[in-house]
Amino acid sequence: MSLAPSPAALARAGAVLTVDLGAVVANWRALQARAEGAETAAVVKADAYGLGAAAVAQALSRAGCRSFFVAHLEEGIALRRALPEARIFVLHGPNPGTEVEFAAARLIPVLNGMEQVEGWLAFVAGRGRPVPAALQVDTGMTRLGLSRAEFDALRADPARMRALDPQLLMSHFACADSPDHPLNRQQAERFAAFAADLPGVTASLSASSGIFLGAAARFGLVRPGIALYGGNPTPGAENPMAPVVTLSAKIIQIQEMDRPQTVGYGATWAAPGRGRLATVALGYADGFLRAIGNHPDTHPVFATVKGTWKARLVGRISMDLATFDISAVPEDRIRPGDTVDVIGKYASIDALADAGQTISYELLTRLGPRLPRLYRNGDAS
Amino acid sequence: MSLAPSPAALARAGAVLTVDLGAVVANWRALQARAEGAETAAVVKADAYGLGAAAVAQALSRAGCRSFFVAHLEEGIALRRALPEARIFVLHGPNPGTEVEFAAARLIPVLNGMEQVEGWLAFVAGRGRPVPAALQVDTGMTRLGLSRAEFDALRADPARMRALDPQLLMSHFACADSPDHPLNRQQAERFAAFAADLPGVTASLSASSGIFLGAAARFGLVRPGIALYGGNPTPGAENPMAPVVTLSAKIIQIQEMDRPQTVGYGATWAAPGRGRLATVALGYADGFLRAIGNHPDTHPVFATVKGTWKARLVGRISMDLATFDISAVPEDRIRPGDTVDVIGKYASIDALADAGQTISYELLTRLGPRLPRLYRNGDAS
Repeated sequence: MSLAPSPAALARAGAVLTVDLGAVVANWRALQARAEGAETAAVVKADAYGLGAAAVAQALSRAGCRSFFVAHLEEGIALRRALPEARIFVLHGPNPGTEVEFAAARLIPVLNGMEQVEGWLAFVAGRGRPVPAALQVDTGMTRLGLSRAEFDALRADPARMRALDPQLLMSHFACADSPDHPLNRQQAERFAAFAADLPGVTASLSASSGIFLGAAARFGLVRPGIALYGGNPTPGAENPMAPVVTLSAKIIQIQEMDRPQTVGYGATWAAPGRGRLATVALGYADGFLRAIGNHPDTHPVFATVKGTWKARLVGRISMDLATFDISAVPEDRIRPGDTVDVIGKYASIDALADAGQTISYELLTRLGPRLPRLYRNGDAS
Repeated sequence: MSLAPSPAALARAGAVLTVDLGAVVANWRALQARAEGAETAAVVKADAYGLGAAAVAQALSRAGCRSFFVAHLEEGIALRRALPEARIFVLHGPNPGTEVEFAAARLIPVLNGMEQVEGWLAFVAGRGRPVPAALQVDTGMTRLGLSRAEFDALRADPARMRALDPQLLMSHFACADSPDHPLNRQQAERFAAFAADLPGVTASLSASSGIFLGAAARFGLVRPGIALYGGNPTPGAENPMAPVVTLSAKIIQIQEMDRPQTVGYGATWAAPGRGRLATVALGYADGFLRAIGNHPDTHPVFATVKGTWKARLVGRISMDLATFDISAVPEDRIRPGDTVDVIGKYASIDALADAGQTISYELLTRLGPRLPRLYRNGDAS
């Protein structure tokens, strides 16, 4: 199976997402170095945050990554086809009745609540031998995971815990991107107490930002997601990760302005007079979030033209279109069919997410299915 | 080809999108009645605003709809497979060099700028006979379309205009959802002048909201999109359209709260004490926009439990998860594996979009590829 879009598909496309797999691998290695001996897994749920789970996971597997996390059973089944040998954890655990599908695809369910634990124990009893599973405990996120009381009740029944035979004990930080938040220390302490009660089982608390919280948050396995894809795991400080994605959109039309006129829906932006505009084939249906265009004064957004010139986003982002002021680009250097980089040199994923009043995680996961994914440096691992 | 997900896929899924094709058809008929003799087309770009272009377009075709609009060539090629006979317009027109693919799939390009016009004329000259195309003119959106001067220059050369032989003349409103905006009347007047200069060619100005602007905006063909899918084309007034989509998410875990504690990322929401929470397998990667959870005081959001009970969204929406307060649901009436309707009786697409500070168009087009689409009443047309 080739993961590359055909030249014809690229010619048809209005916009193309380029994913630098070499940068993904470099980011994974940098996180591995920082994790100092903890196993460094990879979170590839939501189609590797929109970048393509199969291509990303295969590149990381070649680089030595052995454990992967997805959210849904369906994602796990698809990833198993791409990675016959890897450990694949499914964070949501089994919907009632789907336990057998986990075993069939050798997927490790994360058991989040007592109903999932009971369902899994019944399934395992029918099999007559343990089937690998992981256990989530809640340390303060109040989202998924056994409470301390549920965990203690389970632990008080050694036969059941033996039947469960967990491969991994995990929990999740609520505020890891705010290093000074008091909940971080509380969660790490609570998790350490859980882990101490389950000796010999690998423990995992930290995702991307947690890896930067120091040794007390590290435990035996870390599971970065956004940092692999170039998002800043240390908001407020410089981004230590390499950029991974470029989003390039084709120009459909260039318009000469010779008088003041408004641009786009709601007529919210008034062009000052003379100048040139380029309308490109990319819009919020592709994940160029509509809110990115809503705060031009406080959060101006710039596309990159031919690696050199800045072109400012003007007016509202439409469903399938956006318009940029290309007055600064020499007239003979740009024409319809050319591309502008909407994620690129002058707009990181964090900057665009900030302009859209959200986080880079959401920006990436909403990159739409219309965009062909073009992979570079897949052999760099 | 069956469009229905298998029972196994539905059992695996964390959330399911149900599309009422009977409601889509009813909305199309209601718009057709309001359009009073204008041809009523259907805009199915962006995969029919996320609902599935093939299923939606086939249902509308059975109901009598003959003309469809997509944005991209690739979308047109896919729709041609679903609808061998329909007229399919491609709004973005040809990228340079792709003209032959339009003809091969009998797609009608909308020519937006002089470069696309010149490219198409060169292609047609090579063929030796006209190939159907449409022409867009700019009347004040300043996004795509020939300027008045470009249109006049083209018209001054009858041989070129004959070679072009446009099937449709179109333009697009910038402010149709604000009926009192002065730009509406200006655009309608400018467009009427264009249309008068191209007698015998069908003219089209109005999308969903334009249909509600009265006879002066009607012309020969109207092309609704969002109103077909249940979005309100008359913001500020009651929604005249029937709801089309239900989004149901499965409960992974129910947690009992017995003390005050915070919920979710950033610990932004503090549970007051006793109560029950349900965490469901739906998040912003699925299109449950993160911003929907950001304004709980001014824009509380409620899921519908078993058609009866309200469950309030609490804490931030995660990538793959969201948490609802189900304290109002009797304990014996809800358990893990059950679903809650996140788009449903207590949350319309417009209300959710409003909570997320965007528009229903973006909410629908961002419904993610992880969600199986379940179609109902496909035989109602």
